[in-house]
Amino acid sequence: MPSRSSLKHKLYTIIFEAETPAGKAFDVTILILIIASVTVVSLESVVELRRNYLNLFLTLEWIFTILFTIEYFIRVYSTPKPLKYIFSFFGLVDLLSIIPTYMSLIVLGSQYLLVVRVLRLLRIARIFKLTRFINEGQQLSNAIRASLTKISVFLGTVLTLVVIIGSIMYIVEGTASGFTSIPTSIYWTIVTLTTVGYGDIAPQTALGQVLASLVMIMGYGIIAVPTGIVTVEMSRTDKKMATTKVCPNCHQEGHPENAYFCYNCGYEFHR
Amino acid sequence: MPSRSSLKHKLYTIIFEAETPAGKAFDVTILILIIASVTVVSLESVVELRRNYLNLFLTLEWIFTILFTIEYFIRVYSTPKPLKYIFSFFGLVDLLSIIPTYMSLIVLGSQYLLVVRVLRLLRIARIFKLTRFINEGQQLSNAIRASLTKISVFLGTVLTLVVIIGSIMYIVEGTASGFTSIPTSIYWTIVTLTTVGYGDIAPQTALGQVLASLVMIMGYGIIAVPTGIVTVEMSRTDKKMATTKVCPNCHQEGHPENAYFCYNCGYEFHR
Amino acid sequence: MPSRSSLKHKLYTIIFEAETPAGKAFDVTILILIIASVTVVSLESVVELRRNYLNLFLTLEWIFTILFTIEYFIRVYSTPKPLKYIFSFFGLVDLLSIIPTYMSLIVLGSQYLLVVRVLRLLRIARIFKLTRFINEGQQLSNAIRASLTKISVFLGTVLTLVVIIGSIMYIVEGTASGFTSIPTSIYWTIVTLTTVGYGDIAPQTALGQVLASLVMIMGYGIIAVPTGIVTVEMSRTDKKMATTKVCPNCHQEGHPENAYFCYNCGYEFHR
Amino acid sequence: MPSRSSLKHKLYTIIFEAETPAGKAFDVTILILIIASVTVVSLESVVELRRNYLNLFLTLEWIFTILFTIEYFIRVYSTPKPLKYIFSFFGLVDLLSIIPTYMSLIVLGSQYLLVVRVLRLLRIARIFKLTRFINEGQQLSNAIRASLTKISVFLGTVLTLVVIIGSIMYIVEGTASGFTSIPTSIYWTIVTLTTVGYGDIAPQTALGQVLASLVMIMGYGIIAVPTGIVTVEMSRTDKKMATTKVCPNCHQEGHPENAYFCYNCGYEFHR
Repeated sequence: MPSRSSLKHKLYTIIFEAETPAGKAFDVTILILIIASVTVVSLESVVELRRNYLNLFLTLEWIFTILFTIEYFIRVYSTPKPLKYIFSFFGLVDLLSIIPTYMSLIVLGSQYLLVVRVLRLLRIARIFKLTRFINEGQQLSNAIRASLTKISVFLGTVLTLVVIIGSIMYIVEGTASGFTSIPTSIYWTIVTLTTVGYGDIAPQTALGQVLASLVMIMGYGIIAVPTGIVTVEMSRTDKKMATTKVCPNCHQEGHPENAYFCYNCGYEFHR
Repeated sequence: MPSRSSLKHKLYTIIFEAETPAGKAFDVTILILIIASVTVVSLESVVELRRNYLNLFLTLEWIFTILFTIEYFIRVYSTPKPLKYIFSFFGLVDLLSIIPTYMSLIVLGSQYLLVVRVLRLLRIARIFKLTRFINEGQQLSNAIRASLTKISVFLGTVLTLVVIIGSIMYIVEGTASGFTSIPTSIYWTIVTLTTVGYGDIAPQTALGQVLASLVMIMGYGIIAVPTGIVTVEMSRTDKKMATTKVCPNCHQEGHPENAYFCYNCGYEFHR
Repeated sequence: MPSRSSLKHKLYTIIFEAETPAGKAFDVTILILIIASVTVVSLESVVELRRNYLNLFLTLEWIFTILFTIEYFIRVYSTPKPLKYIFSFFGLVDLLSIIPTYMSLIVLGSQYLLVVRVLRLLRIARIFKLTRFINEGQQLSNAIRASLTKISVFLGTVLTLVVIIGSIMYIVEGTASGFTSIPTSIYWTIVTLTTVGYGDIAPQTALGQVLASLVMIMGYGIIAVPTGIVTVEMSRTDKKMATTKVCPNCHQEGHPENAYFCYNCGYEFHR
Repeated sequence: MPSRSSLKHKLYTIIFEAETPAGKAFDVTILILIIASVTVVSLESVVELRRNYLNLFLTLEWIFTILFTIEYFIRVYSTPKPLKYIFSFFGLVDLLSIIPTYMSLIVLGSQYLLVVRVLRLLRIARIFKLTRFINEGQQLSNAIRASLTKISVFLGTVLTLVVIIGSIMYIVEGTASGFTSIPTSIYWTIVTLTTVGYGDIAPQTALGQVLASLVMIMGYGIIAVPTGIVTVEMSRTDKKMATTKVCPNCHQEGHPENAYFCYNCGYEFHR
């Protein structure tokens, strides 16, 4: 890194790191800009507001876009590995969050895609050097990742079930009750099984209501499964962190609290 | 405390403590007054009842307010540190619960704010000297507080997701299906993701229903996360309380509260 | 018991016990009668069916009632302690399940109260000598009972919250959106917080929808709390049952699996 | 097996096993055919699509059916125990997934039963030799099976409750609010207790809304029970798998899978 130009290095520490006061100030500014920008895009979609404040919205949008464009190019310039940044998750998000405004010159309505900017918020977690937050988030996402295989087996079973139930309800209720096709019935089944229950489609016949009751009770039981999976996984992660008694001889982790000997090298612990 | 006047001290033990019979009687009276007062405010808002019993309601309200005002001033008078009480949580609640009636002389409708009185119920937990309740509540709130960091990381991620999904649904469904703006779409997303599902807004297009199905299934999985967090945290608090007895001879943990001997080395505990 | 008459004793073993073939046959017959009787009462409430089969329903109802009346008097006769049976939970249920038919001679519509008969189903668990079921049920209800204090603290807090939120929503939304009074608003808040979400009342104003979103997200978090409580309690019950190593000297239960000494009397276990 | 004809054996390894490249290719082909076939049946039920593409759908359906028929007969031919296959779960599913098309020549509309084909997806889990998936699935279904007794006791209690509440609501609300009969009221109770909340039926009277609120809060608590059951069961299965290594010297349990020494007495394990 000493071979890089002084300006480049300075920009790098400001933009990609958050330890220095300048870096923190930069990150806070960007955070505020992102929230303001997402708010403007959201409000612009409200008809009454658009009618009255269209010019204000357009002006603000262009200001945000130009600022984010400048930021993007400084990032590309200052990072030691530009290509790696450009094709990283956050690099793509940064790019996607400026393109729609330029696109809106050509394609009408594409400025709503600007909402993708909210994804940029994820990178701001670093701002307050919230290692505490980051650790907890890490722990959470570890537990969720470890449960993914179980959850996908579970989801596969549920989706198969949903297709079967949806088809049966289509045959039982028919188009008169709003079950106009099998895909619509499948949609209804998901709405019911997840206990969302819009009520835009609801069974009318006695048999349909009996079947719907079964689906609801099933959904009630089914919700227990992902909860159980995630809880067990979290509790496991939790325990791993709680019982990290380390062997002073071979540095093996994970000994029970009441261990007298290392299970890896047989070293006797001092009590 | 011996320097304070006898009356002041007497009032203090009655109002702020619940050990004496007088203190208990005072607390029970206040409890009944609060519930009665909140009930009156609620009933007053029902049109048919207001039409017929307006004078009754107004009279009762003024009686409750005057009683609570007297109580408030006695509290301020009898406490050794008036300012600390006035600006404490319950001090502010006590004040807020009498102001609206006086305000209603000037601003119409402000008497509904009287419902804030229900917050006063929280202080009544002491009445029956329910240390058991208080301990359990303490344990609960400890577990919830310990999970707050994890839950806020989780909520932040969910809110980001909700904004993104809301915007996509706005573009996909459009105003015809009731998705009249991005904020409305975000509202719909929250209604769906939390499995509330009013049905005031529901997707009409095939693509919208497919996306909605994904959101619901996601919501189904997402609900597992806070449950897992709170359960693990509670189980941890629970274990801490259950296994605090350590053998002074061999330092083995996990003895039952009523243990007389160490289960590991047979050492006899001092009782 | 040898002093009681032979008939009385015979009836007792048939009706109150389920070990003999006659006892089992009796219990199965009663089970079928109860289900048939509840089904008849339910079907009678359907307008189309009542119109066509009223006489059939009335006849069946009187048959069931007379049979249950006979059963009731035999129970009173054969039990050694009639008063204890009459005022026991099941004694009262048995009585309540026959009274409504006789009442319907005087008060119209009271026959619907016959549905109370379904409660009698609870006693039938004994039929198949399902000690397995009974144990599991016992374990379940123990866990729920042990969580009751925590759950009532939790419910108290939630109800206080519900009254506050309901009042705020009443002020924010007003009668135009269906929030016609504070009690109605409280009803809406419960519908939303529990994620039921009928949609009969839904916020229309922007501010109301923002508040509703907060309530929903809160409800999402709140549901984690009773789940956590029950899970921890069940897991505790589970562990208690798993570690019932009993001391052969003093018969104290609850030793850890790796205990070498009884924690109660210090007796050294044979390994 | 050496006595069987070479062709039969070859077909058997291709169709019933997934280790060979030919077997994998066969399974992937079948998987794609099943998904395509279920998709066609679903789309055919959409009125607009059926009107325009009926001939395409019919042709595709017959192609799929003929392919599945050939597959079925090859399976019957190649398996060493044809009867065992025919009456196995998957044998019946395979048969049921071809019959409806032939039936549709006689009975109109029966082709929708073809959706049963989706059940065949379950057998495809073997494709990628996903033993990982199969193990996790096994673990999941073990936990669910172990909880079944507890869950059925729980469901029995809930259903009894639902009948009682439904009857009370029928008496309280009456037919004016849509509670047209006891079965309909029971349906409403299930919709509410499971927090689905369609809103097609909703209480209108004050008393009805109070009762409904109680049901919702109860449903909120009730959902904790199956979740607790499944979580505890999963956690138990999890622990069993984690702590199966016992020291042959001191019989201490709970060694990690990769332990070389007993953590209690230092004994070196045979590897």
